[in-house]
Amino acid sequence: MEVFQKKRSRKTGLPPGSLVHIGDQKVEDPGISIIRYGADILEQEDFKAWDSRLEEQIGKHPVTWINVDGLHDTALMQRIGEVFGIHPLVLEDIVNTEQRPKFEDFEVFLFMVMKMHFPGKKPGVFHSEQVSLVLGKDFVITFQEKPGDVFDPVRERIRKGKGRIRKMGADYLAYALLDVLVDQFFVILEEMAEAIEEVEEIVLKSPEQGAAHRIHHLKRNLLQIRRSVWPLREMVNNLEKTESPLLTKTTRVFLRDVYDHTIQLIDNVEVSREITSGLLEVHLSSLSNRTNQVMKVLTIVATLFIPLTFVVGVYGMNFDYMPELHWKWGYPAVMLLMLFAVSGMLWYFRKKRWL
Amino acid sequence: MEVFQKKRSRKTGLPPGSLVHIGDQKVEDPGISIIRYGADILEQEDFKAWDSRLEEQIGKHPVTWINVDGLHDTALMQRIGEVFGIHPLVLEDIVNTEQRPKFEDFEVFLFMVMKMHFPGKKPGVFHSEQVSLVLGKDFVITFQEKPGDVFDPVRERIRKGKGRIRKMGADYLAYALLDVLVDQFFVILEEMAEAIEEVEEIVLKSPEQGAAHRIHHLKRNLLQIRRSVWPLREMVNNLEKTESPLLTKTTRVFLRDVYDHTIQLIDNVEVSREITSGLLEVHLSSLSNRTNQVMKVLTIVATLFIPLTFVVGVYGMNFDYMPELHWKWGYPAVMLLMLFAVSGMLWYFRKKRWL
Amino acid sequence: MEVFQKKRSRKTGLPPGSLVHIGDQKVEDPGISIIRYGADILEQEDFKAWDSRLEEQIGKHPVTWINVDGLHDTALMQRIGEVFGIHPLVLEDIVNTEQRPKFEDFEVFLFMVMKMHFPGKKPGVFHSEQVSLVLGKDFVITFQEKPGDVFDPVRERIRKGKGRIRKMGADYLAYALLDVLVDQFFVILEEMAEAIEEVEEIVLKSPEQGAAHRIHHLKRNLLQIRRSVWPLREMVNNLEKTESPLLTKTTRVFLRDVYDHTIQLIDNVEVSREITSGLLEVHLSSLSNRTNQVMKVLTIVATLFIPLTFVVGVYGMNFDYMPELHWKWGYPAVMLLMLFAVSGMLWYFRKKRWL
Amino acid sequence: MEVFQKKRSRKTGLPPGSLVHIGDQKVEDPGISIIRYGADILEQEDFKAWDSRLEEQIGKHPVTWINVDGLHDTALMQRIGEVFGIHPLVLEDIVNTEQRPKFEDFEVFLFMVMKMHFPGKKPGVFHSEQVSLVLGKDFVITFQEKPGDVFDPVRERIRKGKGRIRKMGADYLAYALLDVLVDQFFVILEEMAEAIEEVEEIVLKSPEQGAAHRIHHLKRNLLQIRRSVWPLREMVNNLEKTESPLLTKTTRVFLRDVYDHTIQLIDNVEVSREITSGLLEVHLSSLSNRTNQVMKVLTIVATLFIPLTFVVGVYGMNFDYMPELHWKWGYPAVMLLMLFAVSGMLWYFRKKRWL
Amino acid sequence: MEVFQKKRSRKTGLPPGSLVHIGDQKVEDPGISIIRYGADILEQEDFKAWDSRLEEQIGKHPVTWINVDGLHDTALMQRIGEVFGIHPLVLEDIVNTEQRPKFEDFEVFLFMVMKMHFPGKKPGVFHSEQVSLVLGKDFVITFQEKPGDVFDPVRERIRKGKGRIRKMGADYLAYALLDVLVDQFFVILEEMAEAIEEVEEIVLKSPEQGAAHRIHHLKRNLLQIRRSVWPLREMVNNLEKTESPLLTKTTRVFLRDVYDHTIQLIDNVEVSREITSGLLEVHLSSLSNRTNQVMKVLTIVATLFIPLTFVVGVYGMNFDYMPELHWKWGYPAVMLLMLFAVSGMLWYFRKKRWL
Repeated sequence: MEVFQKKRSRKTGLPPGSLVHIGDQKVEDPGISIIRYGADILEQEDFKAWDSRLEEQIGKHPVTWINVDGLHDTALMQRIGEVFGIHPLVLEDIVNTEQRPKFEDFEVFLFMVMKMHFPGKKPGVFHSEQVSLVLGKDFVITFQEKPGDVFDPVRERIRKGKGRIRKMGADYLAYALLDVLVDQFFVILEEMAEAIEEVEEIVLKSPEQGAAHRIHHLKRNLLQIRRSVWPLREMVNNLEKTESPLLTKTTRVFLRDVYDHTIQLIDNVEVSREITSGLLEVHLSSLSNRTNQVMKVLTIVATLFIPLTFVVGVYGMNFDYMPELHWKWGYPAVMLLMLFAVSGMLWYFRKKRWL
Repeated sequence: MEVFQKKRSRKTGLPPGSLVHIGDQKVEDPGISIIRYGADILEQEDFKAWDSRLEEQIGKHPVTWINVDGLHDTALMQRIGEVFGIHPLVLEDIVNTEQRPKFEDFEVFLFMVMKMHFPGKKPGVFHSEQVSLVLGKDFVITFQEKPGDVFDPVRERIRKGKGRIRKMGADYLAYALLDVLVDQFFVILEEMAEAIEEVEEIVLKSPEQGAAHRIHHLKRNLLQIRRSVWPLREMVNNLEKTESPLLTKTTRVFLRDVYDHTIQLIDNVEVSREITSGLLEVHLSSLSNRTNQVMKVLTIVATLFIPLTFVVGVYGMNFDYMPELHWKWGYPAVMLLMLFAVSGMLWYFRKKRWL
Repeated sequence: MEVFQKKRSRKTGLPPGSLVHIGDQKVEDPGISIIRYGADILEQEDFKAWDSRLEEQIGKHPVTWINVDGLHDTALMQRIGEVFGIHPLVLEDIVNTEQRPKFEDFEVFLFMVMKMHFPGKKPGVFHSEQVSLVLGKDFVITFQEKPGDVFDPVRERIRKGKGRIRKMGADYLAYALLDVLVDQFFVILEEMAEAIEEVEEIVLKSPEQGAAHRIHHLKRNLLQIRRSVWPLREMVNNLEKTESPLLTKTTRVFLRDVYDHTIQLIDNVEVSREITSGLLEVHLSSLSNRTNQVMKVLTIVATLFIPLTFVVGVYGMNFDYMPELHWKWGYPAVMLLMLFAVSGMLWYFRKKRWL
Repeated sequence: MEVFQKKRSRKTGLPPGSLVHIGDQKVEDPGISIIRYGADILEQEDFKAWDSRLEEQIGKHPVTWINVDGLHDTALMQRIGEVFGIHPLVLEDIVNTEQRPKFEDFEVFLFMVMKMHFPGKKPGVFHSEQVSLVLGKDFVITFQEKPGDVFDPVRERIRKGKGRIRKMGADYLAYALLDVLVDQFFVILEEMAEAIEEVEEIVLKSPEQGAAHRIHHLKRNLLQIRRSVWPLREMVNNLEKTESPLLTKTTRVFLRDVYDHTIQLIDNVEVSREITSGLLEVHLSSLSNRTNQVMKVLTIVATLFIPLTFVVGVYGMNFDYMPELHWKWGYPAVMLLMLFAVSGMLWYFRKKRWL
Repeated sequence: MEVFQKKRSRKTGLPPGSLVHIGDQKVEDPGISIIRYGADILEQEDFKAWDSRLEEQIGKHPVTWINVDGLHDTALMQRIGEVFGIHPLVLEDIVNTEQRPKFEDFEVFLFMVMKMHFPGKKPGVFHSEQVSLVLGKDFVITFQEKPGDVFDPVRERIRKGKGRIRKMGADYLAYALLDVLVDQFFVILEEMAEAIEEVEEIVLKSPEQGAAHRIHHLKRNLLQIRRSVWPLREMVNNLEKTESPLLTKTTRVFLRDVYDHTIQLIDNVEVSREITSGLLEVHLSSLSNRTNQVMKVLTIVATLFIPLTFVVGVYGMNFDYMPELHWKWGYPAVMLLMLFAVSGMLWYFRKKRWL
């Protein structure tokens, strides 16, 4: 999700439920990876395409997690939709990568859309991707735009059987995924904070030309994060409050914890936004100050030398009758006079605190 | 609807229910086009004026969609009002093109007013028109200011029998029309986004004179879109929540989807507004920076040459007794002295980071 | 009501219910005009003072509308209060012309205070007056500060029996008065819009000295309108929602319509305020731009000629040994040199886009 | 209460209910004045210290009003607390003069803290004092920081038996005191309005150096008033809504009136704040404009004369071979040439609207 | 807690309940100090490490207060958690020093996280630390980052048996700790107020270069305080409203008092923020004013002397035929002429109020 949404118009006028992939195609072929586990079982498989073997296994394990990378293959999407009984409007939302984070309860399954951010190479830069999650009785399906995600710690915990994850149901898996996704925002925000402090130092030290642009980019990026985070809070809140029997009481306690994190995220985003806004004002004031100083130098030089230049000009005139020119001490007298004038002006400038 | 409303005063002091067309007359003669359809039937007719044949057909098809282009013919309006039992206050609202989008439930029919925006030739420019919609048990009447609308995809779907539209009732038709109208706003906002990015590039690259004006126009246009979108959200929400039996449960699910879109619209509008506001600040800071740089050039040139001009002025004086003038090396000595002075000042400017 | 309230302090420390006229006395003698009507009757009389004939007629017609112009005659006020059983606190509010618009339900009568605005001679200028309205079972009493109001269309409708007004009760009359008063605000806002667009054109074309002042005045006037309009919305809402039997169901439907208008008014006021605020920023940016351009001209001229003046100063020195002065081509050579210097600088300015 | 609170820290770490006087001691010895009255009785006494005679009289009159000036004598406070059964936390609040206005219902008595403002010598300057009020069944106790208050009109009404005050209970007395206190704020705000208009005139006429400071002080003072007024509204609202039997129904009607006044106060404060904020922007724009004009004068003078000075410099060079110098019409030709140049530049400046 | 949170990312991807210390380790070894008391008993002990003697004493005194300084020893934390039955998620929150202040009710105990601020050496500078508090039936456990806190007055009161603290339960102890912690914020805010007034004086007197930076730092610090104070209010409110039987009715009354203080804190923070924001505007306006004055000096000097320099340049030309040069009174005439010119310009500047 960029700050501005730009591909949404492709869908204008189509009947509801039309599967149209909105967004950039970020991967050539979709990939499907499956993890099936329970307290004592663990199976892991990767598929390049849809496979009937896959369907046979459904419902035979305590928890099945299907992860799909790449959303442009609408035939695949439709097939998954049929197998798991996903509503067409949901499929439409999954392939539209310009969704606002939201949660919907469809009784037989719960549906969530979220934004996942990855830090870029430079602080303050990051990449985004949309992640959709369908939670059923014994399965979780996640849809991503391209391979590579923030879920590896969860995979690790499943593989190694760390924590309680292997003993819990699909709802706990969904919680665990949501949790790392929210945690990832803290990483992004810490990078933003670093970028802000870098610009802060520039602004406070010397008013550089590019500072205003950098502040503008920070603001834009913060605006984008804000757009992901505010509806996320709402989403987690709705999720926690839903009466769906798909969520156990234990998981709800953990969701409450995630909710607290989203509030903290919002807090952090707003503080960052406020400080960034303040920076521009400081920058403007620094610029104004700098102009002031340049002006002072010009004024001092001009005020010192322009009158003197006039004086020497006077004695450069060619009038026949200029008695001073013929005085013996005329030259040194004029020089002394000018010295006094300069001293007087310097004293005045010092009084005015310009020097 | 312009940003400022300007024709509203024509109505001041008239009794309620007076049919007064407020707005520009955008078409010479009103046009009426009718589509009657059901799962297996499809009839389409165009009328130049009101026709009794038209009245005979009412209620004989599952769904009748009457579209009226041009609102200034109050006699025609009154006739339609009588035939379909539309309340005089509603007719008054239909012919007043400065309405705020709203929804009203009159039990025997539902009434909606909306704004329809068309992209203009340049990005960031668009035209607007008011669309009113009356939804009855088996009919939908739409009122527009002039021919040409965004409903062609719906007509297409009815004609080709694409999607479920032919099998559904009048409420689904109303939904479909609302849906394309809301989708159209995304098109407009994408154009606005492009216009904003264009101005952004100008502002970030070089502070041009016209940038402030362009930003001002962007802000005005966004203000106008905002005025259409905020009440639209409220309208769709009220529509979805109404207890009227004219809306089936299926249609309500789709309306929920439209509601989500309006929230996303508002989100987009607000982000665009915020970025546009930020641009003016960046522009001001660029201008300030530019002034600073111009000042520096002036100061450097003046500070270098004004003292030198003084020095050469001294040796241009015509005093009889100026021993330096008669020294053999006087001229090159003065030249060297000035060279040192210039070098010193250049070093000072470099230290101050002005060069 | 001015932006600042200034006469309120006269009342400090008086016991509640003290009749003290707060505001300017705008008319010498109060005037009373009465219209009594029903479906078939219509009587109209003007009084200069209170009259016992007037009291005899009370209650003998379906609707009696008493209009009082001028509020400073507290004896008259007290008499009216006694005859119609108006609470002392209400009379106190009527003669205090710095009231905030409000509605109060006193069971036997309903009380409303509103502001009435008249357009002045220039766009953006207007005069204000406080109007109080007491609605009883079969009478309406309106109190104004001076003769001349916006109610003439209503009087016309009563006289000519246009619309339903003659067939309806006192509550409909109150509605009709409220309606024209609200409509009048649209006239004022259209004038404000014109004034804003006038200033907008000035600001966008050339930064004139007086623009900031005009914007400031626009803002003040908008602030004043806002102060009348926001509580008006609340007032109409409370009126519509009151459970008083003095309001029939039909009138409530019309009041709902008035309520919609007040929302639209608020919308218009806020849009006008936002655009006006934006204008000051554009103005500042224009000023900044203008300074920039002036600076550039100065810098170009100074940068071109100050070095040249130095050069010619050099050859104006009177040293005995300056070989160049005696060269045959010295003069043209120096002139050429300066020409090259100027060309170089012009090329530099063009590169910097200053020309 | 200053804008910043500064003495609060004295209390840090003390157990709750510790009587510590926070604020400046504004009077040497506390003074106690008592008014006892009923419809037919009126007694008035002043005490320098606590007196057992005073205690004997308690409960023997319909209403007893005890006013205490000076809060630093904690022994006295404790004694009053014991006699009238006032909760230690309330006493603590009374002697802490940095309270936020609030209302608390302690069943046997009601407790209110308010701020009282007095106009100072110059418009826009005022002094503040904290007033606490304890309302019991048949007594009212008011606590002030120093002698002198705004309650004299109430004392007058009691003495002269004006209005209904002598016939009503203690709750009406409390209302009457609250009413004059709220009315006093209008006086202060009218003075602020005058001060604002004074600064407004300065800013609109000529950008004076001190204007920014005056605006800053206005803002600070308005901030302080705002701090007193906002919680006052809440306080009056809570007071009116309390279910305490200490308040009769009649008094509640009057309290509703006071509540309306506090809303109007808030309205006035916010309008004043907004206009004051706008003034700074106008001031900045005036300053910017002024700089612009100064720049233009400099630019015109420099642009006219710097090139001319170059020209005369050319003919002041001492080259042996400068044919123009020997032409008969050289001198007038050069003078004419310069005249043309000046005329051309003047025409250019006029075209640019700089003259 | 710094303005930006920076260590939070360490925890990303860990299973919930993982004890990871987030924040700087501020002490080498954790220290445990215990106070056990009742109306007649008082025992006090310090431990360097966990001790089984400690466990034996649990539950044998009316109130046990355990204070832990240093959070990095997760083994110790785990042990305390087991002994007192503290939920793993709570332990996780205790060792994460970037918590937002919050309150949670776990039925068998209540959990609170707060921020404690200490004034630094200079006004406007302060240090922060996170304090967690677990309140059980007969114990209070406080966790701090390092030794040294604001609780000494409470320890004193316990030791000396001042106030009611020794007679009350653990809930009153928790209240007393919360109370001093909130009071401490007033100390910090008074220091901030002093720092603001210091900068205010600088800004109003002379526009110094560093003022913008100082204002920026004030804003940052206020932002940080705000972040601690806003959730604190919510926390105290939730605490007071909880239905837990761990809080007696008496303590709730005192908590209400603390709640009032937090509201006052927020009030103070917001006022400080507003005044600080206003300062930057005044600073910018002062800078603008200063530039204006410098410009005026330059303009006056240049406008006076540049034309004169031109005039003397004219008579420095070397034309053969310049009759004025040979006039006897040429020189004084030119001097007089220039004197008149200067006088005229001075008069003009005085009229323009530049002198």
